[in-house]
Amino acid sequence: MNVDIGNALDTSPGVSRDGLERLDRRVERAHGRIQEGRERGEHGFAALNLPERCDPREVEDTVAPFGDPRAVVTVGIGGSALGAATFSAALESDVDAYFLDNVDPAHARRLLSSLPLEETVVNVVSKSGTTAETLANFLVVRDAMQRASVDWTDRTFVTTGPSGNLRELAAKHDLPALDVPEGVPGRFAALSPVGLACAAIQGHDVEAILEGGSAAADRLDRAGAGSLFETPAYAYGAVTYALAQRGAGVNAVMPYAESLETFAEWFAQLWAESLGKDGLGQTPARALGATDQHSQLQLYRAGPRDKLVTLLRPTERPDLEIPETDLEGLSYLGGSTLGELLDAEFEATEASLAAAGRPSVRIEIDRVDERSLGELLYAMEAACVLHGDLASVDTFVQPAVEWGKRAARGLLGGGEFPEAEAVRDKETLIVDGN
Amino acid sequence: MNVDIGNALDTSPGVSRDGLERLDRRVERAHGRIQEGRERGEHGFAALNLPERCDPREVEDTVAPFGDPRAVVTVGIGGSALGAATFSAALESDVDAYFLDNVDPAHARRLLSSLPLEETVVNVVSKSGTTAETLANFLVVRDAMQRASVDWTDRTFVTTGPSGNLRELAAKHDLPALDVPEGVPGRFAALSPVGLACAAIQGHDVEAILEGGSAAADRLDRAGAGSLFETPAYAYGAVTYALAQRGAGVNAVMPYAESLETFAEWFAQLWAESLGKDGLGQTPARALGATDQHSQLQLYRAGPRDKLVTLLRPTERPDLEIPETDLEGLSYLGGSTLGELLDAEFEATEASLAAAGRPSVRIEIDRVDERSLGELLYAMEAACVLHGDLASVDTFVQPAVEWGKRAARGLLGGGEFPEAEAVRDKETLIVDGN
Repeated sequence: MNVDIGNALDTSPGVSRDGLERLDRRVERAHGRIQEGRERGEHGFAALNLPERCDPREVEDTVAPFGDPRAVVTVGIGGSALGAATFSAALESDVDAYFLDNVDPAHARRLLSSLPLEETVVNVVSKSGTTAETLANFLVVRDAMQRASVDWTDRTFVTTGPSGNLRELAAKHDLPALDVPEGVPGRFAALSPVGLACAAIQGHDVEAILEGGSAAADRLDRAGAGSLFETPAYAYGAVTYALAQRGAGVNAVMPYAESLETFAEWFAQLWAESLGKDGLGQTPARALGATDQHSQLQLYRAGPRDKLVTLLRPTERPDLEIPETDLEGLSYLGGSTLGELLDAEFEATEASLAAAGRPSVRIEIDRVDERSLGELLYAMEAACVLHGDLASVDTFVQPAVEWGKRAARGLLGGGEFPEAEAVRDKETLIVDGN
Repeated sequence: MNVDIGNALDTSPGVSRDGLERLDRRVERAHGRIQEGRERGEHGFAALNLPERCDPREVEDTVAPFGDPRAVVTVGIGGSALGAATFSAALESDVDAYFLDNVDPAHARRLLSSLPLEETVVNVVSKSGTTAETLANFLVVRDAMQRASVDWTDRTFVTTGPSGNLRELAAKHDLPALDVPEGVPGRFAALSPVGLACAAIQGHDVEAILEGGSAAADRLDRAGAGSLFETPAYAYGAVTYALAQRGAGVNAVMPYAESLETFAEWFAQLWAESLGKDGLGQTPARALGATDQHSQLQLYRAGPRDKLVTLLRPTERPDLEIPETDLEGLSYLGGSTLGELLDAEFEATEASLAAAGRPSVRIEIDRVDERSLGELLYAMEAACVLHGDLASVDTFVQPAVEWGKRAARGLLGGGEFPEAEAVRDKETLIVDGN
């Protein structure tokens, strides 16, 4: 993969080449801290060791007993689902993958009524084993299996921490179990069993995903790696930081490949939860090229100068020829391909942002395959860690979500919490349509 | 539906009750202009007359000859797809709906290889009949049908303007044709054949969608409608404007229903293309409750004070009981329902934003059905028109996207365009991973 930051220089917001050179000294120091954190296996930094630590055979062996299922359901939320969902959306498989990563009864009903439960594998993912949404969904799925006379213990495995409900459940019912890695926040766990179990069941090459991650990790270990001009992940992390400092409060991530749409969601969690604190943090906006040229581009080119657009594409893809046509004014399309049209739109969008003085960064991966995905995800994680270090935020925590969890628990009768009282005191000014 | 703006008062950013009262005088004047625009059927304002102007039977009669297909493919992009996609995602049907709203060859291949072409209806949607992406996709689909020995003229209809390629094609091959309404930008065309043809094929109640729109339109005609305290659409339009003025550059739209996820995409186009100009415009961020509590909420609560969160839910939904459990610490979940859990999370998230002094607006619709969707979409369009008027932007144009269209066309050999030259002059600063 490579990162081209040429279109983020001297735009508005934008950073000068001199500014980047000065920032590069801080990148070097941050790189030192990152390498130290990796060596010590410190909380969070441990994520950047996953490609080396994670054994692909362990993941494959654990799911092997399930044979050749028709579907796999991942029951998990946030980081317990998004890595797996990213691989699943990007790579084709004969095994359908579904995600119960919400507690929407309509959605759960629809899914459960259409699933071939006796040929479905269920992976329940929660580090603590107490995530309310995940456990509620698990109870619902297990109940559906029991009603359908499917032995749930034959079709279920867990991915969890060393203790807690799911670990005990696995012991009691002899379920296969995979380990959520220690010291790794969920959003950084894609290159571990958390993200890879579903991929293994779908028949994807888990080893190649990890090799891609290792290749990106090796970049950090090279001589000279501590420069944003040498290491793609740092180029991206440093430029996003420099632009955020200069007013780019929004980072619109726009892959030009439908199969990478879920990658943008994974990225949105990584970026928002890691960097969104202490009054700082870029808002990730998920977009999709070329579709969103007809939706968001007007705003990106002519709206407030508060955005960076991150353009992402594979340089190689399976293509499809556009048939010749005598339709008026469209003969130029005939004989070229959908891929050429998509690439022309990619470059046109990038240039149209530049022409309006708006910054963009171009990220290119070789193709949408296991190796490139592993490399891309690792590089984005390293970019995020660098950005967080430069911004002096505590990248690996997410304290602001606890308030709502306590409130919801209190509302459902799970204990006395003052937060639940606050819900009842809500300010209202209702304008009614009836 | 109703709109509760109580949690946008006196937050940061936020607006005071006094500020809203003063703004309300401008809302009244804007309402006068909107009503005048509607009466005269002016460009753009004409969108707000669609529920009255659009004849549901014409849509139904046009698609009736296709009988009972297994699938419908809408070939269109931006506003030519998002309205139809919103209804399709929200409402269940035995007829599968697909959208070719991109020019991704991998996606198109995958779709075409899995579709039962002889039982598929294709709707080609382009007002001008020259949209490159749409026409390229149409050529590819037609070719696939011909290769599969399916008579494409039996399976295809068009939704287009009074002249152009698609209109001529329809005449030549005797294809059914629906009219794209005059004077209505694509993003405002959901309540016309553009959005409704797909819904009709899927068996949804098109008349009820329009009735919902009419109900919201009637609100604008009532005595006293020109006050944000009386009309839900204006409450939303005025508060989003007031908050944007005060620094809420991001509007995170977060439905608590998986089936409304595509609504958030439709909204994102409406908002970005209509209001994103002249250096103004809120960036729509698409989110999904409860899932994104585990992804975006950390940023919303603790990041920069540049956001409004729009929370949306149906007050009634098909529910699903959570089975009783003896799992440690989770017994409180047993006996309640997924819907109760989801509602508790909705209220907890809203209160957690309030506790952090962050603004949110609550929109409630009765349920996810045809009528409520028509009402919701119409109200959001009216809110957008009001917001645009208050901000003094030209809501109904999107000039900034033309540059890229010319560049792409030039790159593909469709003529000489200086924009294509600019693409070739791109600045580069490539950091390579190899």
